Amino acid sequence: MLTKNLESWLDNAEEYAAAKKFDVGVLMTARLAPDMKPVIYQVQSACDYVKAGAAWLSGQTPPKHEDNEQTIDEVRARIRKTVAFAESVEEAQYAGASERKVSMSWAPVGKVLGGQHYLLQMMVPNTYFHITTAYAILRHNGVNIGKMDFFGPINWMDA
Amino acid sequence: MLTKNLESWLDNAEEYAAAKKFDVGVLMTARLAPDMKPVIYQVQSACDYVKAGAAWLSGQTPPKHEDNEQTIDEVRARIRKTVAFAESVEEAQYAGASERKVSMSWAPVGKVLGGQHYLLQMMVPNTYFHITTAYAILRHNGVNIGKMDFFGPINWMDA
Repeated sequence: MLTKNLESWLDNAEEYAAAKKFDVGVLMTARLAPDMKPVIYQVQSACDYVKAGAAWLSGQTPPKHEDNEQTIDEVRARIRKTVAFAESVEEAQYAGASERKVSMSWAPVGKVLGGQHYLLQMMVPNTYFHITTAYAILRHNGVNIGKMDFFGPINWMDA
Repeated sequence: MLTKNLESWLDNAEEYAAAKKFDVGVLMTARLAPDMKPVIYQVQSACDYVKAGAAWLSGQTPPKHEDNEQTIDEVRARIRKTVAFAESVEEAQYAGASERKVSMSWAPVGKVLGGQHYLLQMMVPNTYFHITTAYAILRHNGVNIGKMDFFGPINWMDA
């Protein structure tokens, strides 16, 4: 799962900060533009899309995760509880997911998203958006990560 | 389709360059780190994943698109021919897509990806990765785009 990769980037961020002798918190609050959000927010947001998608598409209300992370270890903990929740959902619970209706707080009045559109137009694009933005901020600041660190496990099969 | 959004970001890049009186080509070759690729490459790569996915999963060999774009208009043309190809594939051509085998030049020897894993582990993540990176580079350089410009059309339905 991609959010697990995110955690390995944090390890690289920590090594880099230690080698260069600066507080890794600087990277957690780094941004690409003054009116863009920092790394901590990008991780919170990616986690929220994963958590919400796993919940709504399996007929559950998402557990509440407060956005109060400040340290790199708190950011790691946020990723871990998100992964734990997503992995707690059994495949069978997603039965009928494409027919579920999902509400969004900012939807036009009286409108919802069908499960399939929610997955393809909201959950997947936004999760990748925020994960890639976190990657871009870290990379811009010199953290030693590369494209192969973006990939999750790849299920090769015999030709 | 998301690659159409990309074209609207180029319009904003052009307006910004005109307002600030610099050559928009500066933005096309902008990077977030010296060992990261510039905007033109990010667009080429996103386009290639869309083109390859649409082709392999519908049983076709992808058309060859040379990576020789240099100007913003050439970048727009690359996006347009990619969208035109993807839209030329009829839904029925994707029948059996999950059972197709897709070769990757850098796969371990004798290994391929099944269609479903190719879509979910390769095409979708990489397309979003390169589109978001293009967005991040433009945003970092001050182009007037925001999160709502990242979304494609959203298929709301009645609650």
